Amino acid sequence: MSELSRTTGVPVATIKYYLREGLLPQGRALAATQAEYDDTHVQRLRLVRALLAVGGLSVAAAKAVVASLDAAPTDVGAAVGAAHDALPPGAPPADGAGPVRALAAVEALGWDVDPDSTGVRQLDAALAGVDAAGLPMSADRLRVYGAAVLDIAEADVGGMPTSTPTAAVHHAVVGTVMYEPVILALRRVAQQHVFRRRSSRTVPPPTE
Amino acid sequence: MSELSRTTGVPVATIKYYLREGLLPQGRALAATQAEYDDTHVQRLRLVRALLAVGGLSVAAAKAVVASLDAAPTDVGAAVGAAHDALPPGAPPADGAGPVRALAAVEALGWDVDPDSTGVRQLDAALAGVDAAGLPMSADRLRVYGAAVLDIAEADVGGMPTSTPTAAVHHAVVGTVMYEPVILALRRVAQQHVFRRRSSRTVPPPTE
Repeated sequence: MSELSRTTGVPVATIKYYLREGLLPQGRALAATQAEYDDTHVQRLRLVRALLAVGGLSVAAAKAVVASLDAAPTDVGAAVGAAHDALPPGAPPADGAGPVRALAAVEALGWDVDPDSTGVRQLDAALAGVDAAGLPMSADRLRVYGAAVLDIAEADVGGMPTSTPTAAVHHAVVGTVMYEPVILALRRVAQQHVFRRRSSRTVPPPTE
Repeated sequence: MSELSRTTGVPVATIKYYLREGLLPQGRALAATQAEYDDTHVQRLRLVRALLAVGGLSVAAAKAVVASLDAAPTDVGAAVGAAHDALPPGAPPADGAGPVRALAAVEALGWDVDPDSTGVRQLDAALAGVDAAGLPMSADRLRVYGAAVLDIAEADVGGMPTSTPTAAVHHAVVGTVMYEPVILALRRVAQQHVFRRRSSRTVPPPTE
């Protein structure tokens, strides 16, 4: 365990806590006070650490993510969907009307999705939020956002290892949770860039 | 006040709470028990409601956002920057090394940004997070993400009303806070679409 701690930089006390909480599988017992940990432990430890310390997940949410990894999925797409379901922010319960805003959006974008999936319900709740704030999604904005996000999703899925579903799901979980703050920060920085570029123009911008 | 409540659908008790907390300016007093509220109250009330109830901001964070609106900015870009600074997640304190990851990323993208801005520090923290999780940002991924997010930022800034800085900042704040969940949900749905499209192919996809 002290070697595992040295390799990953995670304190022994923290490793013990993860073992107790079932976030990390037990090592192979070698003696009463010694256990063997392999590369899968190193990988899992880094994931759990990242989910809790950097991703800000609760222990319960991290457990659900780990459980989706341990379900030993055979279909990568379904496994990534299950992992998404385990990640925050979750989705509001389905109401009578169904996710009508989200379904209209994915239809306008021509995307093929499961209308009952958590992602669709999350999208519906987010679209209801911008409506309530008085800034509803316009057709133009949806077209730009949809194309941009599809490029991101293609890069996400294209970069996914396909050796085993477990490796793919590990990549998808880390890629979803840990890259979300990257995307949001990049957007704010990009807005700054757009403002600075526009204000530094000495001639009026061409009409596009 | 009861009319303001009817117009916005926000309960009178909630409006009183916002007034007490300084989130909503007082109406113009007409009599001891009557005050007049105008369109600016309606707009501000919708914003505060959205920030707290849908955006999940704390009262303190919402107050900071409202203060950035009330600062009556004259430069739209600077005002949007100030509003961004007031929004969660905030940024970690600058350390000795500076935001080296973020500065390398914006240089690779060719963006013109303030290296001391909150957005750059947020980006640096997010990039440190993906490093720690063992899935660092690659040059390819950065190129795709940067181009996609720049399209989103152009749409955000392009759709901004330019009549007054206050209107622009209002739009920027709502657009930033309320559209972040839309972008993240759209990405998850887009990943689902990519998976389903790939798995439904009967011939191998062309090498791109």
